[in-house]
Amino acid sequence: MKKVHIIGLGLLGGSFALALKKSRPDWKLTGFDKNPLHLETALRMGLIGEKRERPDSDTSLVVLATPVDSLYALLDQTLGQVGPDTLVMDFGSTKDQLCRQMAAHPKRSQYLAVHPIAGTENSGPQAAEEKLFDGKVLILCEMEKTDVQLKGLAYEVFEALNMKLRFMDPVDHDLHLAFVSHLSHVSSFVLGKTVLDKTRDEKNIFDMAGSGFASTVRLAKSSPDMWAPIFFENKKNVLEALDSYLEHLSHFRNLLAQGDAEGLHQEMTEANKIRDILDLRD
Amino acid sequence: MKKVHIIGLGLLGGSFALALKKSRPDWKLTGFDKNPLHLETALRMGLIGEKRERPDSDTSLVVLATPVDSLYALLDQTLGQVGPDTLVMDFGSTKDQLCRQMAAHPKRSQYLAVHPIAGTENSGPQAAEEKLFDGKVLILCEMEKTDVQLKGLAYEVFEALNMKLRFMDPVDHDLHLAFVSHLSHVSSFVLGKTVLDKTRDEKNIFDMAGSGFASTVRLAKSSPDMWAPIFFENKKNVLEALDSYLEHLSHFRNLLAQGDAEGLHQEMTEANKIRDILDLRD
Repeated sequence: MKKVHIIGLGLLGGSFALALKKSRPDWKLTGFDKNPLHLETALRMGLIGEKRERPDSDTSLVVLATPVDSLYALLDQTLGQVGPDTLVMDFGSTKDQLCRQMAAHPKRSQYLAVHPIAGTENSGPQAAEEKLFDGKVLILCEMEKTDVQLKGLAYEVFEALNMKLRFMDPVDHDLHLAFVSHLSHVSSFVLGKTVLDKTRDEKNIFDMAGSGFASTVRLAKSSPDMWAPIFFENKKNVLEALDSYLEHLSHFRNLLAQGDAEGLHQEMTEANKIRDILDLRD
Repeated sequence: MKKVHIIGLGLLGGSFALALKKSRPDWKLTGFDKNPLHLETALRMGLIGEKRERPDSDTSLVVLATPVDSLYALLDQTLGQVGPDTLVMDFGSTKDQLCRQMAAHPKRSQYLAVHPIAGTENSGPQAAEEKLFDGKVLILCEMEKTDVQLKGLAYEVFEALNMKLRFMDPVDHDLHLAFVSHLSHVSSFVLGKTVLDKTRDEKNIFDMAGSGFASTVRLAKSSPDMWAPIFFENKKNVLEALDSYLEHLSHFRNLLAQGDAEGLHQEMTEANKIRDILDLRD
């Protein structure tokens, strides 16, 4: 039996709880969410066995699954509450600033920075899915800085969840994520806003959503409470990605405006290469 | 028994054939595709019973499911080949220019302009799905200009395919589609190109695609042969939609650059309203 404490019982924290309950039924799960409704829902759904404001000092693992702007303070506070044999990890979508803030922390070796590449556009404990992490990529940063015994526990947990481990420098992580994930969220939020601002009659959106819009705009349903902090935490990289996207869009616009059929066709043919990469996943 | 002839045996033409075979097994399906490989594949898959360069003069229905820039010439040619009791319809994604070109055509009453709001990012006969049209919206334009008897046949076919009919002015159709569908395709093509240009190591794209990228970029796999003509045919509206998108993106960029957390949160909260509209579909 091991004790695991989860702070933040939303989509990620809740899904982690469900997966761990399934694979390690004898482990004891406690947790906390500063939103009292989410906390009660998580308890009622059985995501955790007990609510607790702070982890027991003999807890084996504490997981922080809260918005990225809350993580450093929570990490510092949690490390002050637990004993020397507890591993604390966060599930944040940005890693560079947090790793830098933690660099000189006296309990740095009890911390592990990870990022599960898993999620949906939904949020809150009711969005939790037992299979959310199953077969998904987990990015680990600066693993060499974590105590070797505690790393053993981390490996056990990720193996139980059937995750594919990838090791990455936190600076690289944040840059790649800005282009691949954060930019997708920006483009989707803004696509939703553009169409809503133009189309007064919502029935037209509803009727035409099957024409590719529904999937392209899906991420516009995502939680602003989660995403605004990610954009600001990773501001430099997100701005670089967004500026590059704006340039590419203006180029596409000009090809269209100038009637350059060959150029436009070429742009799209090059974009088609994304199929070769993504279809490996199916 | 009725004879139906399908020109263009790709995703839409092929799916139409499969659905019609299922619901009207006694009807006789012939077809043509100018790509000999597609034509042979369609025959081998049984999408059509026979290949034929032109419809029999007693064919009840001819469907044109080819790129939009080919439609007027094909429509004019086909109407010259068939007798007075044949209905000819096109499945094109733009409607305004074609309806204007057809306005004074001597056989205008034998033509019906429709647009099935159905598709995937895949193309060619092998992408055809029997259920692609099932329960989907079909937009009909200027139906009052079609002969009343031939309209009866159209209704029979769309009912057999279980489609939801919506009547729309062709000018409105093209404007709404530019914002809801064509803009989604532009944003997705350009997102794919932006990420490919930045990320030399394709493994990073592959590993991180689960973070929202895979669905947002899905449409970038679409066929340039189909989409370049749509963008040019609907150029004025697509440019309006794209310019509006660029403005919204620049606004979002400035909020982020200026550190306006409240403003950025507000933009995302407004975009969230897309959920209220789209979740009605699920």
